[in-house]
Amino acid sequence: MNQQTIGSWVSSANMESCDFPIENLPYGCFHAVQDPLASKKIGVAIGSHILPLTDLSKLIEIPLHLKNSFQHFDDLKMNEFMAISNHEQVLCREFIKDLLSINSKNQAILEPIIIHQSEVKMHLPCEIPDFTDFYAGIYHATNVGSMLRPEQPLAPNYQWIPVGYHGRSSSIIPSGVNIKRPIGQTRASEGKPPYFQPTRRLDYELELGVFIGKSNEQGVPILVDEAEEHFFGMCILNDWSARDIQAWEAVPLGPFLAKNFATSISPWIVTRHALEPFRKAWLRADNFPQPLSYLNSKNNELFGGIEIHLEIYLQTALMKEKQLPAERIVTSEFSKAAYWSIAQLITHHASNGCNLNAGDLMGTGTLSGPMEQEVGSLLELTRGGKEPIELGQGEKRSFLENGDTVIFKAYCKKDGQVRIGFGECRTTIVG
Amino acid sequence: MNQQTIGSWVSSANMESCDFPIENLPYGCFHAVQDPLASKKIGVAIGSHILPLTDLSKLIEIPLHLKNSFQHFDDLKMNEFMAISNHEQVLCREFIKDLLSINSKNQAILEPIIIHQSEVKMHLPCEIPDFTDFYAGIYHATNVGSMLRPEQPLAPNYQWIPVGYHGRSSSIIPSGVNIKRPIGQTRASEGKPPYFQPTRRLDYELELGVFIGKSNEQGVPILVDEAEEHFFGMCILNDWSARDIQAWEAVPLGPFLAKNFATSISPWIVTRHALEPFRKAWLRADNFPQPLSYLNSKNNELFGGIEIHLEIYLQTALMKEKQLPAERIVTSEFSKAAYWSIAQLITHHASNGCNLNAGDLMGTGTLSGPMEQEVGSLLELTRGGKEPIELGQGEKRSFLENGDTVIFKAYCKKDGQVRIGFGECRTTIVG
Repeated sequence: MNQQTIGSWVSSANMESCDFPIENLPYGCFHAVQDPLASKKIGVAIGSHILPLTDLSKLIEIPLHLKNSFQHFDDLKMNEFMAISNHEQVLCREFIKDLLSINSKNQAILEPIIIHQSEVKMHLPCEIPDFTDFYAGIYHATNVGSMLRPEQPLAPNYQWIPVGYHGRSSSIIPSGVNIKRPIGQTRASEGKPPYFQPTRRLDYELELGVFIGKSNEQGVPILVDEAEEHFFGMCILNDWSARDIQAWEAVPLGPFLAKNFATSISPWIVTRHALEPFRKAWLRADNFPQPLSYLNSKNNELFGGIEIHLEIYLQTALMKEKQLPAERIVTSEFSKAAYWSIAQLITHHASNGCNLNAGDLMGTGTLSGPMEQEVGSLLELTRGGKEPIELGQGEKRSFLENGDTVIFKAYCKKDGQVRIGFGECRTTIVG
Repeated sequence: MNQQTIGSWVSSANMESCDFPIENLPYGCFHAVQDPLASKKIGVAIGSHILPLTDLSKLIEIPLHLKNSFQHFDDLKMNEFMAISNHEQVLCREFIKDLLSINSKNQAILEPIIIHQSEVKMHLPCEIPDFTDFYAGIYHATNVGSMLRPEQPLAPNYQWIPVGYHGRSSSIIPSGVNIKRPIGQTRASEGKPPYFQPTRRLDYELELGVFIGKSNEQGVPILVDEAEEHFFGMCILNDWSARDIQAWEAVPLGPFLAKNFATSISPWIVTRHALEPFRKAWLRADNFPQPLSYLNSKNNELFGGIEIHLEIYLQTALMKEKQLPAERIVTSEFSKAAYWSIAQLITHHASNGCNLNAGDLMGTGTLSGPMEQEVGSLLELTRGGKEPIELGQGEKRSFLENGDTVIFKAYCKKDGQVRIGFGECRTTIVG
């Protein structure tokens, strides 16, 4: 049973299915579309609205001990806000919660400035200096590996190393921005010269993104029991992939143009503090070894997991034409799908002294579950394109077609807790 | 025979072996070490000195048509300067050249503000939003490939695709900053669990870096004949590599922690305009296919090459103790070593619509030449560590040891042209 929300004077925040109750308060960056003079602002989502935090200090007396932190909102320096101490972040969160609570003394002042989410354009929530994509989804790695190397789907390093690679930060885009089908080299058959043509195997990958807050100095690793101090929050992430380009280019240095044309993320950063009630044990199947000691932690075993439910929806051009809603094709769950916890990903990334900075984004890897209807890519769902899925209107898909809209959703739900959501990551393919 | 320099009133710039004659004028970012109040400034190297460009407008009347461009120096926005048009860059360069020429009317005003390079600390020359490392050195790719796959050293895609992968931008450091030997997972033998220990196979890789100036919009490729409009300039680059970590982690997504602990670059950006006199034809051996049409260009064939000579020096702790100079162990040449031209690297990178931005850095890949004394890594020079090199003092090296200093140098020299140099990229390994 859902616990009762503490309640907000923004009434839409009190609805049971709402992604953004007062217990969530994710940060984002937006501008009002109807005001030609509107500039970007940082805000928190509340119900179907946004409370702007930028320039809030002009309306409300910010307590002295929070002034420095709120100044970052005024300066549009979200990354600097993400770098402040955990303690200060909690205080800011509590202050914002008070402003929005049903008992707030500031409702009359704030009611005129909250803005409906339908009236804004969302931007990336912060600058993203570096983007890393991990491969922590063990069912995904097994499914993909079994297509390429049936005799040994998982490489010997998989159970020991949080495998990852660097991605492209310039091409990360927020939900709502269309992507153009990329052109690239592919090869029809061995021994023949390659073609240069629009990809024929365009795919999504269902991931979560982890934002770094506190940085570490170059040369100074992060202990696994301190790793979560560097974890600011999460978003949904779609790691677009052109499978034909990837197959031809990726030897020996990994994926490059098959991925870097675009990565989509949901625009709200759900903070670690909002996710706290959905913690769970981080269990690993018995037949896998204990991690090496730098990745091993009793704390991680007890609380390293977070129960986050994931959904993939697809809406084709024909479905839009017929005014049919998007069809849910897959559901999955983060903690079941991932072999490594967030603390382990952070610790491994910095174990060689690599410096992580506020705003850096880490993709988890594709979060496929163990069952057929839980796989996070079309590559898996259609067995390499050989078994197209059937959609409600009699349409079929092996890979994505122009006009298709892919929507990822995520939420946390647990008995006794107020449900919180991530919003959505929605992208349409154009030709 | 060297052409006579046009000459500068900074007399050290007129010496024949000087890296920074008035014909070079590379951009960098520095601060004066002896002035506790000194802030960062942008400047150009001239002889053994630097002319600060930041705040130059307070001393010298900047012509109206250059004021916007010079404002970027005052604002310390080197990336915005890099993004201005090619035409404006040429005009700025000509103006700076006039200020420093032997016939300058401003010598009396500028003489008090030039600063000796020994009195500054150099920073990164600009912000580096994204870092890509290519694999364009065909002899290097062949040498490394033959250790791993003797039957087929080059993958079938090599002759068609400028193979590359994304690197880490946060850990790029300028010459002069030490690096700590990284710790990481390696495996002693197949079937055994891995160790977590300091790398035993720490290596350098001799590369050049290419800085992007003009950006392209996401989704809009760059034509090969227009690619050089996006090429701002070059530096020397050392792509540090931990070979034991790399061997264990890199399947299936490529190098990650084996590389991202540090990448060193020389601090001066030698501009495309300074490199112009050293252009040459871009020749490809007869037994390789013509590139696909998006990478093919008559212009590239005629002028795509730049003759840049490269040198690797090594100075061990013992050599420093005995006050012996660094020993030159390798020389190579860019255009002979690289299979793909700069224009082809840029065009391929953006061919899928990936957006490149001002300040982005692209490594060329290790620039080994065809001969034994031209190889750009210890992995190649010592045949995987099996045949240590002997240094002058009777010391041997398979891979780098703590206290070793690696120095890369680069210069352009051609009959009838004034020699220009890149300065050096110098790094010491600490434990």
